[in-house]
Amino acid sequence: MQLFYEPLFDSTAKLIVVNPIESRHISKVLRKNIGDKVFITNGMGLLAEGLIKSNHPKKCEIEVLKIDEKKASKHHLHIAIAPTKANDRFEWFLEKATEIGIQEITPLLCEHSERRTIKLERYEKVLQAAMKQSLNAFLPKLNELTSFSDFITSEYNSTKLIAHCENDAKERLSKVVGDDNLVLIGPEGDFSRSEIDLAVSYGFNPISLSNSRLRTETAGIVACHTVNLIKSI
Amino acid sequence: MQLFYEPLFDSTAKLIVVNPIESRHISKVLRKNIGDKVFITNGMGLLAEGLIKSNHPKKCEIEVLKIDEKKASKHHLHIAIAPTKANDRFEWFLEKATEIGIQEITPLLCEHSERRTIKLERYEKVLQAAMKQSLNAFLPKLNELTSFSDFITSEYNSTKLIAHCENDAKERLSKVVGDDNLVLIGPEGDFSRSEIDLAVSYGFNPISLSNSRLRTETAGIVACHTVNLIKSI
Repeated sequence: MQLFYEPLFDSTAKLIVVNPIESRHISKVLRKNIGDKVFITNGMGLLAEGLIKSNHPKKCEIEVLKIDEKKASKHHLHIAIAPTKANDRFEWFLEKATEIGIQEITPLLCEHSERRTIKLERYEKVLQAAMKQSLNAFLPKLNELTSFSDFITSEYNSTKLIAHCENDAKERLSKVVGDDNLVLIGPEGDFSRSEIDLAVSYGFNPISLSNSRLRTETAGIVACHTVNLIKSI
Repeated sequence: MQLFYEPLFDSTAKLIVVNPIESRHISKVLRKNIGDKVFITNGMGLLAEGLIKSNHPKKCEIEVLKIDEKKASKHHLHIAIAPTKANDRFEWFLEKATEIGIQEITPLLCEHSERRTIKLERYEKVLQAAMKQSLNAFLPKLNELTSFSDFITSEYNSTKLIAHCENDAKERLSKVVGDDNLVLIGPEGDFSRSEIDLAVSYGFNPISLSNSRLRTETAGIVACHTVNLIKSI
């Protein structure tokens, strides 16, 4: 089974006109023919099964056979994480988090951040590819790069958690997972002392993820998998 | 704290002579000076704290101040996994598994394996770097590339598990984690039907890792983190 992504269709669609990027992929890269069966998601829970009616490289048309509405995850996970200096490590986090299961990601600009600019469009592509690869029908929401103080001073109805490496009293993430989780992960040089203190004053609880010292992107994945595993057992 | 690796010292050492690779790192890359404090592990649980007595780029000498013996993990995890076609994805698995916690890794040669040769020496370096980065004192054991049939027909005193994508009856890994776990992870094209049947006939129980379809290297990390998390809660 191969999955494609076209955000613009709803559950009543009879014909799906696929965007140029995915049309090119269907027609030119995978050389799909008229009559071939394909699966398409809108990234918001709909999974359509259909037959190729036109394999035009800029505008494939898919005749819909049926559309399933997949159930959204019962829990919500939002990770706000500082992009790593090495961009491939951050893209790796995006890919793996999407495979494992995540609803929302905010790239975070921290005091010790070495990477201070990001390419959101490129990151969107990583998320889409990982969603298709893992056959998920939900595309995580990716927010813009946000400064630490702007981020933590906003309102959230979530269990608010901050993973840091200082020797403060901390709970293990596995003990405090709620239904709606917001986890902050710092940059290579960790959050600064004043960032940690500010987060705590805004109701973020310090957590530890492991007995090992984890790299930023590993911490992100461990947090993501911990929440998913705890909610599944 | 920065950690270096020198396998050849024991708990009675008063002076540690560091191998040329790490000596070069200490002396040339990090420009450490005589009198600087450093930490060294032998990768088998010893963690020495010492002062640099000589920063010769091929033969640093460390005067030992104290040596701690770290406790080994109470559980054992051995993952036998088919190296991925893209080598960086497999190296990424090695790095992350070492950070999260693993005792033994066997690269597995399967029917659908696209990668049929590996560079063991290079993989050893990845493991050593990840051990040092995560401040662990235990280096995972890395075995040679082994054919699937040779591997599964050997004797093991472990909970033997095979993660595959066929629609057979399977348990979730989180439900069957034991104290001593051996998990098989297949290549991009999954294990073949005959490999799965052979493994089952040799006492391997089929498991699932997630509701998503995971890439090989993601499956390896999810298996590794599942075992560590279940044993920690």
